[in-house]
Amino acid sequence: MSLVATARPSTAGLLLDLVRTAGTISRVELAQSSGLTAGTITHIVRDLIQNGLVHEVGRSQSARGTPRRLLQINPQAGVAIGVQLDRTTATVVLVDFAGHTLATAGLRGAGQVSPEETLSTLAGQVDELLTRTGVARGRVLGAGLVTHGPQDRQRGVLLTDQPAPSWREFPLTRTLSAALQVPVLLENDATAAAIGEQWAGDVPTATFGVIYMASGIGGGVVVDGEVYRGRASNTIEIGHVALGSGGVPCVCGNRGCLEVMAGPSAVVARARQDEDLTARLSLRGSPDQTLTDFERLARASLGGDAGARALLDESGRQLGRAAVALVNLFDLDTVVLAGSAFAVAGPQYCDHVARALSRHALCRELTPARALLSANAATAAAVGGALSVLRSSATGARGRFAGPRLVP
Amino acid sequence: MSLVATARPSTAGLLLDLVRTAGTISRVELAQSSGLTAGTITHIVRDLIQNGLVHEVGRSQSARGTPRRLLQINPQAGVAIGVQLDRTTATVVLVDFAGHTLATAGLRGAGQVSPEETLSTLAGQVDELLTRTGVARGRVLGAGLVTHGPQDRQRGVLLTDQPAPSWREFPLTRTLSAALQVPVLLENDATAAAIGEQWAGDVPTATFGVIYMASGIGGGVVVDGEVYRGRASNTIEIGHVALGSGGVPCVCGNRGCLEVMAGPSAVVARARQDEDLTARLSLRGSPDQTLTDFERLARASLGGDAGARALLDESGRQLGRAAVALVNLFDLDTVVLAGSAFAVAGPQYCDHVARALSRHALCRELTPARALLSANAATAAAVGGALSVLRSSATGARGRFAGPRLVP
Repeated sequence: MSLVATARPSTAGLLLDLVRTAGTISRVELAQSSGLTAGTITHIVRDLIQNGLVHEVGRSQSARGTPRRLLQINPQAGVAIGVQLDRTTATVVLVDFAGHTLATAGLRGAGQVSPEETLSTLAGQVDELLTRTGVARGRVLGAGLVTHGPQDRQRGVLLTDQPAPSWREFPLTRTLSAALQVPVLLENDATAAAIGEQWAGDVPTATFGVIYMASGIGGGVVVDGEVYRGRASNTIEIGHVALGSGGVPCVCGNRGCLEVMAGPSAVVARARQDEDLTARLSLRGSPDQTLTDFERLARASLGGDAGARALLDESGRQLGRAAVALVNLFDLDTVVLAGSAFAVAGPQYCDHVARALSRHALCRELTPARALLSANAATAAAVGGALSVLRSSATGARGRFAGPRLVP
Repeated sequence: MSLVATARPSTAGLLLDLVRTAGTISRVELAQSSGLTAGTITHIVRDLIQNGLVHEVGRSQSARGTPRRLLQINPQAGVAIGVQLDRTTATVVLVDFAGHTLATAGLRGAGQVSPEETLSTLAGQVDELLTRTGVARGRVLGAGLVTHGPQDRQRGVLLTDQPAPSWREFPLTRTLSAALQVPVLLENDATAAAIGEQWAGDVPTATFGVIYMASGIGGGVVVDGEVYRGRASNTIEIGHVALGSGGVPCVCGNRGCLEVMAGPSAVVARARQDEDLTARLSLRGSPDQTLTDFERLARASLGGDAGARALLDESGRQLGRAAVALVNLFDLDTVVLAGSAFAVAGPQYCDHVARALSRHALCRELTPARALLSANAATAAAVGGALSVLRSSATGARGRFAGPRLVP
């Protein structure tokens, strides 16, 4: 996104990412995908092999011509940690250098607990996963900490009072880095989910949007395989756009935001106004139980509970309007739903979003717009955080995340 | 926006654009701005000079070291035409190779007239400008036709019934190209306005959004100097996002769109419901007079007419909400207002947008968000269309616009 050549990821980093996404690929295919010359490919791949990042895994069977030597990422070249954190949930994942998940753990979110205590718990969970998988700490390249925005990614801090005032400007990456003894980068949760979806390869296009819903609602956009970053990576705050009527105050200081009108907290709060429904589903109503309550509503809706279904339908219609805004503004035809709030409720929301897109997306004149549900809705963001580490390690990130430079 | 190296603009094209934007620049500054090596700069600049696209214009005065030879675009290297067209207005401009406007003409828009007749009128106007300025047709590199979306830029057609069903799929670029005997490319009006603003150099950042208001409302975004294109360049249809309450049907098939709630037609329609105001300002009320009526309302508002002022204030508040959505979704801190509807009403709208951004933009935690009024609100889009031609000519465009390749 810049005329400045030095701001571009290194060619070696791009090739590593192509190999990682393809799984197995030949040098010829790599040249075709990257647009680089055969000579450049040969040269860089030799370096990648010498550094132990890529290895050859045999030859392709081909009807004619010389069989091509096939390349794969060396999964042993390193491990990355992904930590997704919000008010009600947290997910920790370990991925190998090829991007495959080695272990995963779900735990409670920040809730009413201090940043220090939360990060200490998360660090303990990472230790447990490392022990369980037998991964030596020296092989960990870094951790990607994935949270809601607005963030200052360079300084590794949140620029908001959410989930509590003590979190604003708290040195998140520095503290977690000290606890884990590995470099830590900060990433937006919806952006990380987009990176996770892109890597998972289930999305049949290189240009798509993500609506991420966990405790809050965010968005991510990938265009031609590249993540939209905007000015300072605090992009696509679709949870804080007022798309409907109603002036309910939002934590961001505005009124009528999508998040406060249609997010899990809003759905649970509305459900709690119905005493029968609250008793029937044993809804707790405490802020740190929001996603548990929301999941109960989603299960009840799937099971035919009309009250629960009506609440999710109303929320789904509003999310559908947000999806239309996302595709109309960013010129997309594909929206992926990811985030732990979609773990159970996903199919119901996906129907609403698909219906809204088919009726109202401007691109319907050009191409049918589609809604897809992430195959790993609950973990996509954490995996995306770990993948950000792999990408940064390979391409030589600047700023706060001074990760190991694997490629000379 | 792509891993594919061949999809990137040529290095020569990027350098030409840097020289064009800078006005006067040395090779050393060119290396600093582009991140390219001195050797590459020397090599490409020699080609540009040999092809007559760039020339040396003296040496810089410097306190120490060797004075640097300064480069400028050769304004004589070619001329580009920009044609902005919508329902109520059209603007034709001629710009030289340096991007400076040689001549401009404003005329009526498409109104109720057929595409054939409209394009024939526009072609006649171009001829008149060429005659007036004494520019030989052989020096015209091409024309940029700038309209609302959705468009198919490759095929050079509109994919909408606006301004009338006869315009859908009408071969716009082919017809205009045949009439003018020069290549024609199709560009989105708001995107063109963003390109025009970027070139004009009044915007103090390389990352900004544009809200474009003429007969309709559109948006454009530039990130790190690069125009956001999305999937098929039909981006940022902010006029067709429902940001307020109210379900007025819109021509796009949806309800409550910003354009139908707050655009010039809506303001004029509301004004016409007030008989006193209608008589006082001699409002015509016919669709092809919308912008004339709107301008009368804007002048009356500036002159202290309370009725006119209230209507523009209401529209301005809604545009302010749209600006907040634009900056929150695209992570911007600067919004530029451009388009002929802002020619008179601009300052009043700019106040509303500035106020909305200062109160509601999420980035207010990071940086103050600002609203700027284009210095050439009425012509920015047409100039941007002409600049698109200059860029395409220099970088070797593909697809429908097979313009002359100036750089070997």
